[in-house]
Amino acid sequence: MTHYLDTINGPADLKKLDRSQLPALADEIRQALIAKVTAVGGHMGPNLGVVEATIAMHYVFDSPTDKIIWDVSHQSYTHKILTGRKQAFLDPAHYHDVTGYTNPKESEHDQFVVGHTGTSISMAVGMAKGRDLCGRKENVIAFIGDGSMSEGEAFEGLDNAGEMDTNLIIILNDNEMSIAPDHGGIYKGLAELRATNGACEHNLFRAFGLDYRYVADGNDVDALIDALQEVKDIDHPVVVHIHTDKGLGLEWAHEDKESGHWTLPAAAIEAMAEHPVEDYATLTCSYLLNKMKQDRRVVVLSAGTPGNGGFGPEQRRQAGDQFVDVGIAEQHAVAEISGIAKAGGKPVYEVASTFLQRAYDQLQQDLALQGNAATIIVAGFGDAIGPDDNTHANVFDIAMTNTIPGLTGLAPATKEEYFAMLDWAIDHAGRPVVIAEPGTLTYEADLNIEPAQPAAVPFTANDLDYRLIARGSKVAILALGNFLPLGLKVRKALAKQGIDATVIDPRVYSDLDTATLESLKAGHSVVVTLEDGALVGGFGERIAAYYGPSGMRVLAYGAHKEFTDRVPTETLYERYRLNPDQIVQDVVAAL
Amino acid sequence: MTHYLDTINGPADLKKLDRSQLPALADEIRQALIAKVTAVGGHMGPNLGVVEATIAMHYVFDSPTDKIIWDVSHQSYTHKILTGRKQAFLDPAHYHDVTGYTNPKESEHDQFVVGHTGTSISMAVGMAKGRDLCGRKENVIAFIGDGSMSEGEAFEGLDNAGEMDTNLIIILNDNEMSIAPDHGGIYKGLAELRATNGACEHNLFRAFGLDYRYVADGNDVDALIDALQEVKDIDHPVVVHIHTDKGLGLEWAHEDKESGHWTLPAAAIEAMAEHPVEDYATLTCSYLLNKMKQDRRVVVLSAGTPGNGGFGPEQRRQAGDQFVDVGIAEQHAVAEISGIAKAGGKPVYEVASTFLQRAYDQLQQDLALQGNAATIIVAGFGDAIGPDDNTHANVFDIAMTNTIPGLTGLAPATKEEYFAMLDWAIDHAGRPVVIAEPGTLTYEADLNIEPAQPAAVPFTANDLDYRLIARGSKVAILALGNFLPLGLKVRKALAKQGIDATVIDPRVYSDLDTATLESLKAGHSVVVTLEDGALVGGFGERIAAYYGPSGMRVLAYGAHKEFTDRVPTETLYERYRLNPDQIVQDVVAAL
Repeated sequence: MTHYLDTINGPADLKKLDRSQLPALADEIRQALIAKVTAVGGHMGPNLGVVEATIAMHYVFDSPTDKIIWDVSHQSYTHKILTGRKQAFLDPAHYHDVTGYTNPKESEHDQFVVGHTGTSISMAVGMAKGRDLCGRKENVIAFIGDGSMSEGEAFEGLDNAGEMDTNLIIILNDNEMSIAPDHGGIYKGLAELRATNGACEHNLFRAFGLDYRYVADGNDVDALIDALQEVKDIDHPVVVHIHTDKGLGLEWAHEDKESGHWTLPAAAIEAMAEHPVEDYATLTCSYLLNKMKQDRRVVVLSAGTPGNGGFGPEQRRQAGDQFVDVGIAEQHAVAEISGIAKAGGKPVYEVASTFLQRAYDQLQQDLALQGNAATIIVAGFGDAIGPDDNTHANVFDIAMTNTIPGLTGLAPATKEEYFAMLDWAIDHAGRPVVIAEPGTLTYEADLNIEPAQPAAVPFTANDLDYRLIARGSKVAILALGNFLPLGLKVRKALAKQGIDATVIDPRVYSDLDTATLESLKAGHSVVVTLEDGALVGGFGERIAAYYGPSGMRVLAYGAHKEFTDRVPTETLYERYRLNPDQIVQDVVAAL
Repeated sequence: MTHYLDTINGPADLKKLDRSQLPALADEIRQALIAKVTAVGGHMGPNLGVVEATIAMHYVFDSPTDKIIWDVSHQSYTHKILTGRKQAFLDPAHYHDVTGYTNPKESEHDQFVVGHTGTSISMAVGMAKGRDLCGRKENVIAFIGDGSMSEGEAFEGLDNAGEMDTNLIIILNDNEMSIAPDHGGIYKGLAELRATNGACEHNLFRAFGLDYRYVADGNDVDALIDALQEVKDIDHPVVVHIHTDKGLGLEWAHEDKESGHWTLPAAAIEAMAEHPVEDYATLTCSYLLNKMKQDRRVVVLSAGTPGNGGFGPEQRRQAGDQFVDVGIAEQHAVAEISGIAKAGGKPVYEVASTFLQRAYDQLQQDLALQGNAATIIVAGFGDAIGPDDNTHANVFDIAMTNTIPGLTGLAPATKEEYFAMLDWAIDHAGRPVVIAEPGTLTYEADLNIEPAQPAAVPFTANDLDYRLIARGSKVAILALGNFLPLGLKVRKALAKQGIDATVIDPRVYSDLDTATLESLKAGHSVVVTLEDGALVGGFGERIAAYYGPSGMRVLAYGAHKEFTDRVPTETLYERYRLNPDQIVQDVVAAL
């Protein structure tokens, strides 16, 4: 039933509806959201919670003249429906016409491409400042969830908003949840505000110098419209704190808010239930739980994404005080693990590649410069070069961490190597170690390596050298981490050309094994580097620079310097010449 | 007069003094601080303000069993005096025995090497967590200034502290100043707390879920001891807000707190007054003030360090609302300039190389991914490879920003190029531009380039190609930014060997001028890259990788992958083989 939705092709159409008709419109939207997200996956709970708030915003404000800035923007589906993109939510043939995030290339109603948290207030402060400099008068609205409010950037934004003396409206969408439960002292304060209808003494927002309003039922479109009409064209910054119900309208997502935050397509969930497969998250979680039992000092940290590391509610219960969710606060997480290590603990921080970027300075100053023994597991959620959104690229971590002295960066190729490295990092390394968790689960036995290698993984404290997988001549392939199987495929393809290539599993990307690199000068004229990540600043460039003064030809393969948005892996591999036949072609030309 | 100081070689000696003797000790320390900092320069105001607080901490707590964690740690001079390092403050021959920051290599009383702001609370949370995991009971104390409290990491730390249920003492040293005046909404709240003796309704710290105490006179050692004795061994986190007087005891630093924050040696100040020299900060500030007058949309931002860009109180007054100090909040600054640009403004963010690191993710996600036209001027405060503290290294910005797609990175070699680039970035580029401000002020006319070049700087919107400075053969020197004069020296030295080298001013480090690089293949067999920054991830590695498949020899020069701490420039140049004769030697070997 899309009785009302049929009439809406933009915010102007929404404004033609009577306020009394809006709850029915909300129902229609909610049904469309449930149908689409069930079919193709996506952010379920966050979107179901803000249907009314989005309707109210577009009913009261005049987008795109008024600027609505979405935090993370994974809750912008209703906004997309109301701003000319409803087909992408109503017609399965058009489900993939839009991204899961806002994007100015999609619509003039979208101000930014956003996928990381806590950015909206600062960007809104900027848009308000730019507006004032240009002498305009539109409303600038930031829409931010309670989970995002634990992010340092959001606090900095709030602090700067608190000093402004101009129109700026911050809507705090408080659904009492981050991805997982909220963590941080501010959430006690938010609970008190909810309990007192916004009237309690210790008000975070007033303490930041901001005006403040509270809307008890953030799914009551009428109450929301009243509240927003009151603040429209306001002459100073104000926080409108609305209490919404995450997952409203879909029983399972409403009951299990953590699972309902983001979901795979229903068909995929069913298939996985029938044929469960091992993955690194589950294996790592079991390993770490076991480690914790053996050693009280081991503690695992997550910055608001515990499920990504396999730590669901049950695993967190088992871990007890040996698991810490710091909230979405990556900077803090890195500083905290440095402090834990300094005090004698054995911290392990699990983080997604794209979010570790938030802690670049902390990795350098708070951790690497101290030399404290902490372990960071960086997950790319599958192969790094792949169809990710441009807001969630996972190709930059090796290049980023490679620029930092004092960090040991490891890229295991197999499951056995990965766990050997974890053991080493936690118990023996005595320094900060970053481990790039591979995407593909490769077992030593799967590699079918010739000549056969000892099964034991030779990774010990004093053994940071490269691992020789196959000795040949003329061509040496340095296949980092995830790309060792690709390296072996290239070796096979070269063999057909009569070339018996050497294959090396470098394992370490932060430091050069110069003995091995020197030894390759004998009998090899071409070195190929393969890395599942960005070329600029990456492993291959360093190898090329190492051989720069020599006559060695170096062919470095990896991701080009670009943002890619939902581009199929095959397209990227073709573009980056990562297919074995392309590599062989280049090698033959270079020989 | 060092009557009491003579008796003190560690905290145990301090504890032997009667409380009534401590003000006299404070006087002695203050005189020592004034004498040393006047003679050799350093942080004057911050240290003078916390003499009593430091005495009180060491009187009450038992360092190093109890852990004192200093934020920024530029105010730790009294701590050093009281923990066995007094000679470095009393004896001019030993003035340089200690660094200006805490350092565990110097003393077991120092927990971390610190120089960036806002880290202490998070590190303290970590040390408290580590302590609990290990089953110990010591006090963990973070000592943080009000200026540092605007930093996102500090807020994240406060938020995490607010959720803990264990001993953690946060001493907020409120001297009503950052380096320059504080900026942010929280400072209204701090002022209200001071005005109400800590009793006002909107208490930031209670809103973060924390217990709170107030000490009105933070330079009253007796009051401080009472307050700290009350919180010693407390079983939950508490904020002790002390109101101190920055610069106390030295009239000029007390009156002009901004100038008194950090000072050059008195002799250097005198010499500069007699022989004023042009520098990039002053020139840039004049340029920007003029630009602002011509165009209302131009706005300059600083994250708490306006003086570094030449914007003292008078320049800020002139700029009016076209200058924004966001407080020490680098993440916010980058997001705000993106927002300003999106709304039609022309933002210019001035930042030190070492502090830009705080905004790595914002550079990528909030700015570069958006493609918004903002300008960032990155200052290294002199030549990047130099005697900086390891907490304030300026060699990483080119490598760091180079990994980010969508940022145009420029490294001007001369004053004329720098301002041409600024013009281009602000008015024409239409995209985010990072400009690495050179340290040395080089004029085109100074370069004595042969063959003579046109004086005009050919830097326009469509002209991102490298600039040919001298055409030769066999050897091509790509001398980036600050290192163009070095490149010309190498050319001269090579001429003595009969080699007529090509010299190129690349100007752009973010993108390769492949036409020029290809053209060098004709007639050249060695390419030398020179960059005043880190090699790993830098310009030279990319050039080496570009030429990897060819027979071109590439010799890349720059800083090795290491933290260096106050190492003389000459030592580093020798180590990195940056002297012309060393380079010539390598080139001759490679030819």
